[in-house]
Amino acid sequence: MVGATLWRKVMNVSVILAHPNPGSFNHAIARTAVETLQRLGHEVWFHDLQAEGFDPVYTAAELAREAVLPPEIARHVEEACNAAGLIFVHPNYWSRPPAILCGWVDRVLRPGRAYRFEPDGRGGARAVGLLRARVGMVFNTANTPQEKEEEWYGDPLEVHWRKVVFGLCGVPVVVRRNFSPVITSTPEQRCAWLVEVRTAVEAHFGPAAQARAPGVSPA
Amino acid sequence: MVGATLWRKVMNVSVILAHPNPGSFNHAIARTAVETLQRLGHEVWFHDLQAEGFDPVYTAAELAREAVLPPEIARHVEEACNAAGLIFVHPNYWSRPPAILCGWVDRVLRPGRAYRFEPDGRGGARAVGLLRARVGMVFNTANTPQEKEEEWYGDPLEVHWRKVVFGLCGVPVVVRRNFSPVITSTPEQRCAWLVEVRTAVEAHFGPAAQARAPGVSPA
Repeated sequence: MVGATLWRKVMNVSVILAHPNPGSFNHAIARTAVETLQRLGHEVWFHDLQAEGFDPVYTAAELAREAVLPPEIARHVEEACNAAGLIFVHPNYWSRPPAILCGWVDRVLRPGRAYRFEPDGRGGARAVGLLRARVGMVFNTANTPQEKEEEWYGDPLEVHWRKVVFGLCGVPVVVRRNFSPVITSTPEQRCAWLVEVRTAVEAHFGPAAQARAPGVSPA
Repeated sequence: MVGATLWRKVMNVSVILAHPNPGSFNHAIARTAVETLQRLGHEVWFHDLQAEGFDPVYTAAELAREAVLPPEIARHVEEACNAAGLIFVHPNYWSRPPAILCGWVDRVLRPGRAYRFEPDGRGGARAVGLLRARVGMVFNTANTPQEKEEEWYGDPLEVHWRKVVFGLCGVPVVVRRNFSPVITSTPEQRCAWLVEVRTAVEAHFGPAAQARAPGVSPA
């Protein structure tokens, strides 16, 4: 039992989907990511937030650091903190994720669990990321072409995920792909995009990536 | 009955507040804005989204352009489209508004009512803003100092409100003030910040502003 299979460490990977329409292309993206991870032998924690009726409203009770969380939020926190990878799938709404996913971030990536602050020695504070995930992936759809999103606004989703969320929480490898414009895309284009999703997930969670990753070994 | 009073045109101004804690400084900011507007003789449409139990989750049914909206959303749409001014008060969550306010934007600022797209003559599309508001104001609190928010992230809230939301919806005058760091602020500092709120609201909705504004006259 020595060989390549020993390198195929089972990882827990969270896939979080946020789109109101169950027949959306976002659902196809998420399904592709989930199936690719499962084929690689990983354990997937999948959540279709809209289908699950996730409540994105952060409550006053949750403001306290030691708050007793509702069970469904506590479960999300445990998964998010322990996942080896986090994959988010969502449409671009106003150059940010839909509210239901914003609320997932608000409620689940809690101070003291996903990040903390420590003195920076110069009278300020610096963030220390606490998530275990080494890879964060974002697949988003949009109708604004990528070059216009960059030209007009500076690509706020890139800033949001790469710098603000994954940056603060200490996720070192961030992969984001913006599929746009989705509204005028052909079936062939969408098929090609799903192949891109599969390839990207394989590249970051497949045996080759695990062989490269520090701390992932037959031991 | 000719004189200064005739210049005091009654305006409808929306004030939208999003903070989970009813005792928050955000509530004091919103109260100051509402009272200042009322003292100026305006009609205020005030919503404490959290207290009202606003549901920020955009539904599949609402994706259709001609969707029949839930009554509370339809009312928000009418107010937002007809207000002469829009004022938002919220804390900085992950360099964007809290989910409950993101969802207000998702559900209320609908295509065909708040903005529309038209061909730009070069094969693309350009946005046409449809809101009546001539002034958009944002008062947000944060714990990250303003200079760090700019240095690290490029001040995403500024981009979000000025360019993405008010820009797309055609609100020409945008005023934003970031009160930070709020966590270490003294009562004196907070009092001074509330004076700033009052002064800014007076400057943009008071008689002097109305005298400057085109289309606002005794006729």
